[in-house]
Amino acid sequence: MTQTNRQILLASRPQGAAGVDNFRLVETPLAPLAQGQVRVRNHYLSLDPYMRGRMNDAKSYATPQPLNEVMIGGTVGEVVESLNPKFKAGDKVIGMFGWQEFGTSDGSGLNIVDTTHVPLSAYLGPVGMPGVTAWYGLNRIIAPKAGETVVVSAASGAVGSVVGQLAKRAGCRAVGIAGGEQKCRYVVETLGFDACVDYKAGNLYEALKAATPNGVDGYFENVGGEVLDTTLARMNAFGRIALCGFISGYDGQPQPLKYPALLLTQRLLVQGFIVSEHMELWPQALKELGTLVAQKQLVYRETVADGLENAPAAFLGMLKGQNFGKQLVKLI
Amino acid sequence: MTQTNRQILLASRPQGAAGVDNFRLVETPLAPLAQGQVRVRNHYLSLDPYMRGRMNDAKSYATPQPLNEVMIGGTVGEVVESLNPKFKAGDKVIGMFGWQEFGTSDGSGLNIVDTTHVPLSAYLGPVGMPGVTAWYGLNRIIAPKAGETVVVSAASGAVGSVVGQLAKRAGCRAVGIAGGEQKCRYVVETLGFDACVDYKAGNLYEALKAATPNGVDGYFENVGGEVLDTTLARMNAFGRIALCGFISGYDGQPQPLKYPALLLTQRLLVQGFIVSEHMELWPQALKELGTLVAQKQLVYRETVADGLENAPAAFLGMLKGQNFGKQLVKLI
Repeated sequence: MTQTNRQILLASRPQGAAGVDNFRLVETPLAPLAQGQVRVRNHYLSLDPYMRGRMNDAKSYATPQPLNEVMIGGTVGEVVESLNPKFKAGDKVIGMFGWQEFGTSDGSGLNIVDTTHVPLSAYLGPVGMPGVTAWYGLNRIIAPKAGETVVVSAASGAVGSVVGQLAKRAGCRAVGIAGGEQKCRYVVETLGFDACVDYKAGNLYEALKAATPNGVDGYFENVGGEVLDTTLARMNAFGRIALCGFISGYDGQPQPLKYPALLLTQRLLVQGFIVSEHMELWPQALKELGTLVAQKQLVYRETVADGLENAPAAFLGMLKGQNFGKQLVKLI
Repeated sequence: MTQTNRQILLASRPQGAAGVDNFRLVETPLAPLAQGQVRVRNHYLSLDPYMRGRMNDAKSYATPQPLNEVMIGGTVGEVVESLNPKFKAGDKVIGMFGWQEFGTSDGSGLNIVDTTHVPLSAYLGPVGMPGVTAWYGLNRIIAPKAGETVVVSAASGAVGSVVGQLAKRAGCRAVGIAGGEQKCRYVVETLGFDACVDYKAGNLYEALKAATPNGVDGYFENVGGEVLDTTLARMNAFGRIALCGFISGYDGQPQPLKYPALLLTQRLLVQGFIVSEHMELWPQALKELGTLVAQKQLVYRETVADGLENAPAAFLGMLKGQNFGKQLVKLI
């Protein structure tokens, strides 16, 4: 009996803001496995801001997502059939199968994970790409010293929440920027940041100034636009800025940086980075992050959409900040 | 008989563009030397873009130039009288006496220089602050590898001319950006750059693209504004930008950076710097630069205004790019 796979393809490229009509759900029969192949039933799909950039046909660090092919994305799941000696049915694995219910692979890029102490979905969050992104930007670019102030935007998100918690562990004052009172309360009360500024409340500069009485030494940027301009104006001399994302500019017009001369007058370091280009550091980062999650010393939160068919709407909502913590899609 | 010193003071702060009426020439009697003091007859005054920033009463890396005091600035000259055992009449010295004909000091910040093989004025140029600025930004921030392409703006100037020549010595393709055909010809034919783009000729992006067929790996920025936006669009992945100056924005409105997301997509490093904060590297840099100048392996050019009274006009002209090479004022 032939099984059916459900997949979501990129149907068209966005003109301005992305919409649900840029995606198309298809059903595809699953071919029998060839020798050396392994089949995975995906349990969770990760939705991440970088995917919005891939939808454009523009010069970027990555080749664009091809039209009429399965949207890329990280997945965790369980091996259901294997003709590959490295995998057996029942293995829990993390891979990049994209927006589909089943993945078929020759095993490359597929890694078995241990779910004894760490939940499977966490490998798409604090013990996965978002966690390592936070770890790299904080430790390798900002390199904070105890007593310094570290600010992170999108602070309640998958990356930002880890940045602030690691900064606290490094002895820093951790200040978040997030959208809405509920997220800000979570950032302070649950994640343990020292303060969080609601960028939707208006008067961002005054609020950030009050939250950073000693200025800002390290800034982890996920957002861009007004939030970046404002934080730049609070940077101390010799500050470091880890540029991880510009989610505010992914849809529509590019947003300028208003006062680039501050980079000079404050002698700032700015470093853009893509965590997948630093694979040599992943084992160390994942070991530290996995230990913290297993010991419940690193808190995280997930927003889970149910069913592949809801992935496009969940993705578009995430781009507008409607998720709360790591955005996942449950596929089973 | 009392000698008279002539001095130029900052009379008022600019509203928008600076003008000659922001300065005032005064004559002041010279007081007799006290024990431990040394008196210098200044031969050359250095005019530098950073002075424009000091004229504003704004947050910057330095305290503003106080009103009604002698404008700051680097000077070279000759000791004419000394009650300090470390100096004797006839010593050639470099110091920071500012816009005046005589300087009086307790000897701190005053250094004797050797003019056997290096002309006195060169200590304000390639063997002084501008040269070390070029050396630091190129070697410590851009850190070019042989075969890479290095672009420098204000390429015919005191800093830019050294950047390009050092980049060539490091095995790089050196590309200048300068204003006007005459300066561009000088940059290529006399300084030995591989190419130079005239930003006044229009079509800057296309011209820069033609001059940098392999993209740009290192960029030494003296200018800001459109030149920065354009060069940013040519940067290769993992490029490095040494931010040294924003001369285009010193007068008037701050100029935004149009596409900051390129810093992320190209994973660029940007580092603002002030060379006076890296004094530990000056001896090494000055030794290398002095040797190159003495061996005539480093070419430089000066524009010399004659007489202290002409310093304001020369300074304002330099801000508009009317100088050609290092701008000096001859004081004797």
